[in-house]
Amino acid sequence: MHVPVVIVGSGPAGLLLSHLLHVQGIESVILERKSRDYVEGRIRAGVLEMGTVDLMKRVGVDARMNKEGIIHGGIYISVNGKRTHVNMEELTGGSTVMVYGQTEVTKDLIQARLDHGGEIIFEAEDVSLHDINGDTPSVRYVKDGNALELTCDYIAACDGFHGVGRKTLPGVKEFEKVYPFGWLGVLAHAKPVAEELIYAKHDRGFALCSMRSDKVVRHYVQVPITDKIEDWSDDRFWDELRTRLGEEDAELVNEGEVFEKSIAPLRSFVAEPMQHGRLFLAGDAAHIVPPTGAKGLNLAASDVHYLSEALIAKYKSNREDLLASYSDTALARVWKAERFSWWMTSMLHTFDDQNEFDGRIRNAELEYILSSKAGLKTLSENYVGLPY
Amino acid sequence: MHVPVVIVGSGPAGLLLSHLLHVQGIESVILERKSRDYVEGRIRAGVLEMGTVDLMKRVGVDARMNKEGIIHGGIYISVNGKRTHVNMEELTGGSTVMVYGQTEVTKDLIQARLDHGGEIIFEAEDVSLHDINGDTPSVRYVKDGNALELTCDYIAACDGFHGVGRKTLPGVKEFEKVYPFGWLGVLAHAKPVAEELIYAKHDRGFALCSMRSDKVVRHYVQVPITDKIEDWSDDRFWDELRTRLGEEDAELVNEGEVFEKSIAPLRSFVAEPMQHGRLFLAGDAAHIVPPTGAKGLNLAASDVHYLSEALIAKYKSNREDLLASYSDTALARVWKAERFSWWMTSMLHTFDDQNEFDGRIRNAELEYILSSKAGLKTLSENYVGLPY
Repeated sequence: MHVPVVIVGSGPAGLLLSHLLHVQGIESVILERKSRDYVEGRIRAGVLEMGTVDLMKRVGVDARMNKEGIIHGGIYISVNGKRTHVNMEELTGGSTVMVYGQTEVTKDLIQARLDHGGEIIFEAEDVSLHDINGDTPSVRYVKDGNALELTCDYIAACDGFHGVGRKTLPGVKEFEKVYPFGWLGVLAHAKPVAEELIYAKHDRGFALCSMRSDKVVRHYVQVPITDKIEDWSDDRFWDELRTRLGEEDAELVNEGEVFEKSIAPLRSFVAEPMQHGRLFLAGDAAHIVPPTGAKGLNLAASDVHYLSEALIAKYKSNREDLLASYSDTALARVWKAERFSWWMTSMLHTFDDQNEFDGRIRNAELEYILSSKAGLKTLSENYVGLPY
Repeated sequence: MHVPVVIVGSGPAGLLLSHLLHVQGIESVILERKSRDYVEGRIRAGVLEMGTVDLMKRVGVDARMNKEGIIHGGIYISVNGKRTHVNMEELTGGSTVMVYGQTEVTKDLIQARLDHGGEIIFEAEDVSLHDINGDTPSVRYVKDGNALELTCDYIAACDGFHGVGRKTLPGVKEFEKVYPFGWLGVLAHAKPVAEELIYAKHDRGFALCSMRSDKVVRHYVQVPITDKIEDWSDDRFWDELRTRLGEEDAELVNEGEVFEKSIAPLRSFVAEPMQHGRLFLAGDAAHIVPPTGAKGLNLAASDVHYLSEALIAKYKSNREDLLASYSDTALARVWKAERFSWWMTSMLHTFDDQNEFDGRIRNAELEYILSSKAGLKTLSENYVGLPY
């Protein structure tokens, strides 16, 4: 069987790409290693840039998001208990973000894809990519014990950090930074601490008070990467969160039943280039950001925006220039988001192993930013998302 | 002999402080280890913030500066030969800097101090500070072989990084960062490369094209800290400068007789606190910045602004609160300038020993700043000088 585009991975990148091509009449098949239940159950970030929201709208999958998502015009930054509001909507001349979980984005995109007759092959095992330098690459996989093959014009590897896409792409150069701490994250049935997110820097470490809805909170505290979930009872977590928010804001914390708890490492990673022959990488397959600033999903969205434009230009106008420059175009924005995520992470966390000068510089950076309108604008324009 | 204030060091910090006190009728004596000729011959930076210019004006030592200094409303930033103008005057709503050598500032301040009957004791050897916790501290020194002593109310140590002031102050905590490169600087009789400074980042390293007048240039190139002056013939210097400016701008370089050539290390350093008892530190005695962004002299000026206000409040209104908070007040601005100098240095230099991710982040930082009006504003408001 031959399809124009084979997409590996049914995360937001792959799904959104499939939708963006579909609305222009270009068909694709998505291969996914895991089950639908598994994919729809993964807990991920939950802040969408306006550009990401616009893409959801463009593919007509915005009904539930518009109903259940929460528009935020700013964030709070708390430094050792002193909280400042950053009015991003005002600072950027009207831009906002949408709080809507990646899990929900994925569910909506899968449902809509299937509703429109799109094909998503779940539990496709042993996926391998072939002839990416030729005119007709192919993708082999095993489904229900049967070895199968799809030929195609192009392969989009949206298969995440551990996927086959990057491993197949020759001559990749990798850039990486691993941070000496992790985030302990909980989901709990409780009312949010404030109406917008609170990013807190405290001498004891970073904390973030986020939310999924007005009844479900998503909170994080910075922990040593060697900590285990067992080290953190619910009580210890709530106590630590309150401490890092400072006395006054501690009273705003509403405890509730914790129904998910996990520790995630923080990493920055970029692979260059993002294309070779007829193989293109998008999203986590090519780059990872630490979660501070919530750029992961949004970068996946901007990648597939560029890739879809390039494929549409090829199929509609027989132009290959956008395909040829895809990697350069995507990477220019990727590196800016990597910079922002690294910067937010550096500025807001405490580092045990650092030169004390560096720690003071990080504090001075935060103080400067909070004291300067131009500084707050740089923070805001990156947080709501740089233009495509 | 008793004087209200003894100032150790006749660099711009000490001289400016003496003037600021003098115009309020508070007398001081300056002790300087070196000769007048030596002090007036030291080559230093040459970009004055508006706040520094205003202080020169306030003490009435601005006549020659106004005539010979050159007002700059911006800088150029060149990245691998592609040059961008940063219109700081526009970006900051009217702020500019003044190009006028520190050597000239020093000469003018010394001459004016002496003209007004101020006392500067040059070649005062073996200076030591005593009883800084008492009501009447004293300063001992040797002049022409004679051991002498001054008692005073307050001591201002403006005696530089190697001075006796910081060494005498108990409980100082030091923060330091040493950069793995130096600046090779030349002074030459030649016309400037452009009408404003060019800060150049090139894969081969940083370069800076500055000037002292329309006939004298001050140029720098980043070099390994292990390089010796003998490694750098004039020809090699001009060739390297042209290479780092890129093909197009290389043609703008006017060669001329090189009459000074030196290699300086780059260091960030802060001592906390900047006061104890009746001893106060100002300028390089308390902090060093790398030269990128030219904050050294300007930080000395802001320190003595705060210190003079505090001493004036004491002598005129018997208020001691400003003296008590001097260190905190000065350090808040010091750390912001340290941050800026570290940031400019990091962003514009190449680092051999770095994680490649870090190098890409530095490039992304520069690209972001040059692409964002808010980013350019942060650069500009720091370069022209944050408010006192």
